Amino acid sequence: MLQTRLDKLRKILKEKNLDGFLISNFYNLLYLTGFRTLIDNEREAWGLVTNKNVYLFTDARYMSFPRLPCKGRRESREMDPPIKSEDDNVKYRLITPEKGLVNHIQDIIKEKKIKQLGFEGDDLKFNELMNIKNNLPNTELVPLEKFVIKIREIKDEEEINNLKTACKIADQCLEEVVRMIRPGVTEKEIAFKIEFWLKEKGHGLSFYPIVAIDKNSAVPHYDTRNGNNEKVKKNSIILIDYGAKFNDYHSDTTRMIFTGKPTQEMINTYQDLLNAQERTIKQLRSDNNPVSLDQFCRRQLSDVSQQLTYSHSTGHGVGLQIHEYPKISFTSVDVLLPGQVVTVEPGVYLDGKWGMRVEDTVLIKSEKEVEVLTKFSKKLLIISNY
Amino acid sequence: MLQTRLDKLRKILKEKNLDGFLISNFYNLLYLTGFRTLIDNEREAWGLVTNKNVYLFTDARYMSFPRLPCKGRRESREMDPPIKSEDDNVKYRLITPEKGLVNHIQDIIKEKKIKQLGFEGDDLKFNELMNIKNNLPNTELVPLEKFVIKIREIKDEEEINNLKTACKIADQCLEEVVRMIRPGVTEKEIAFKIEFWLKEKGHGLSFYPIVAIDKNSAVPHYDTRNGNNEKVKKNSIILIDYGAKFNDYHSDTTRMIFTGKPTQEMINTYQDLLNAQERTIKQLRSDNNPVSLDQFCRRQLSDVSQQLTYSHSTGHGVGLQIHEYPKISFTSVDVLLPGQVVTVEPGVYLDGKWGMRVEDTVLIKSEKEVEVLTKFSKKLLIISNY
Repeated sequence: MLQTRLDKLRKILKEKNLDGFLISNFYNLLYLTGFRTLIDNEREAWGLVTNKNVYLFTDARYMSFPRLPCKGRRESREMDPPIKSEDDNVKYRLITPEKGLVNHIQDIIKEKKIKQLGFEGDDLKFNELMNIKNNLPNTELVPLEKFVIKIREIKDEEEINNLKTACKIADQCLEEVVRMIRPGVTEKEIAFKIEFWLKEKGHGLSFYPIVAIDKNSAVPHYDTRNGNNEKVKKNSIILIDYGAKFNDYHSDTTRMIFTGKPTQEMINTYQDLLNAQERTIKQLRSDNNPVSLDQFCRRQLSDVSQQLTYSHSTGHGVGLQIHEYPKISFTSVDVLLPGQVVTVEPGVYLDGKWGMRVEDTVLIKSEKEVEVLTKFSKKLLIISNY
Repeated sequence: MLQTRLDKLRKILKEKNLDGFLISNFYNLLYLTGFRTLIDNEREAWGLVTNKNVYLFTDARYMSFPRLPCKGRRESREMDPPIKSEDDNVKYRLITPEKGLVNHIQDIIKEKKIKQLGFEGDDLKFNELMNIKNNLPNTELVPLEKFVIKIREIKDEEEINNLKTACKIADQCLEEVVRMIRPGVTEKEIAFKIEFWLKEKGHGLSFYPIVAIDKNSAVPHYDTRNGNNEKVKKNSIILIDYGAKFNDYHSDTTRMIFTGKPTQEMINTYQDLLNAQERTIKQLRSDNNPVSLDQFCRRQLSDVSQQLTYSHSTGHGVGLQIHEYPKISFTSVDVLLPGQVVTVEPGVYLDGKWGMRVEDTVLIKSEKEVEVLTKFSKKLLIISNY
């Protein structure tokens, strides 16, 4: 799998006349080399792809023979990775206080005669670039935008399997979570149950769950951790937006749950929203333009719902990160293609009162077929029998 | 508290002749405005500090009146924040598809006649900068390095209280976790217990715990999630490096636990390492140079241990992030000062066999006083009575 990914990357590098590519982004490094660091935002590892090789730079914390004499002197050398990458062609280089990333890059550029080195312009920080630039006076550094992430847009078989499993796990999780919902239970208790259920089984959270009850459901990105921890009441509307992570791949689902007797307005709105969401999923087969799909989804809502319609996008790609390409929104410049996995998540929000969103993670299989990967029922779910 | 932080920042801005400062970093935004977004690496919010005002830019997902008519048109307007910032002087501006961050900055720059705008050179990505630069032809954009993070180095009273609480919670957690340790228990079970115990009580993890048994303990940044899930055996050495998060503030502790009968070599090494760590903590009072402190700590180890000494740094600041300034290492350019909270964490690693590390989170109170905030006992802990 890694080889296929690298082949795709090298093909584009060639088209762009680049003889090297520096990887700074945590997820892109994981995607291309299989190597993951403990912390995703501390630059604990870097990668460099050339025509023939892949180099991985990291420090001794990830190695199993960390000998640093008191004076801090140490020779750099090739080494076995502590965590074996799937691709044995990855060459590891040790970053030390004496021999930093830039020194290693200098060596490789000299050895491989690299003239034009691409970098992740949407990931590399300005000061990082300046540091590299100042030390590579004879190399042209070329900023790339949405480079690896656009390759990641089309999922390979292994990725699709991981995504399917993540969605299945999320479905099972919600089945359990629903059982605990009754008056008195708080947002944080529900969120904790989701997290605990997943982690107990060795899985992860896609993101901290959004559990928003009653008026809190009107805020699309309501922060359950820092909110007022609303309780379920006799008649409540509960929005649960959550996902499971399996082998680093994310699922994303939103479901609505009602307790007691939802008002007729709520029931009508829910059916209207669900109808729009399901039509849009079908439309994914034939419409490859995310801007028109976004508009299509909004138009499916009734006139009443359209007055309360969502300000967020209709959907987004899902993969190693929770928000990937394509974007399904008013401003998207992407194309919908087979192999993509996207969310479809319209909402209706009545300020200060309540909101609703219905969201699935969907695989575009072909121009004639989509598969909804999150299969938890979307039938009106009213809990009244505690 | 926020006002004091902003005062410090504005003083430096004035010295640097800057009339504005763009905040891109999630933690710096939280530190200066009290506003936090759900996801820390997706640029869901930005800030701008001028001589008199603080602006916060975010999108409708964080607002409670998200009306976007079908055509996608919408007026920008001032609004109440959905999550009240502590500082009511923060002015919120809504980012929409039609009026993005750059448009808002253009307005403010024009209104406030900003000529020189500082930005976070070590956080802003190259392409983000280019986009801003191209739209602000008459403003000089000045890259700053380690700007807010160096202000964050000295903790205020509120921060110290949060850090103390985080450390206390972590101590209590480990007391519970120790009870479960017996032959047969796995690394992931111990890590899960730490996570579950903390989250059940509404706290967070500083980072995913490093639980490393026997030969895994020889890898300083061993990844428990992706390791071989070693079990505790009758005679095992167990390294636990973990922390609690309270009100966004982190603790960091490492303790060693032995089962059965540790070898005399292990016992001697542990005492030697502990001795070095405790002497270094005392030395924190009088030595304000982190490079010499780092060397001091290594020199405290016996000749035998020095052959196996650690390649990582001796310590680092802790706060809103797990790794902050000052760094206590061979290459540090920082100064140790009262008000800093740092770790002291020497280690000894015997390749492929076992490793040890002892780590505390320590507050530098004055040139005469330090306070160890993580109080879990460092006496040799041998569990043999299961």
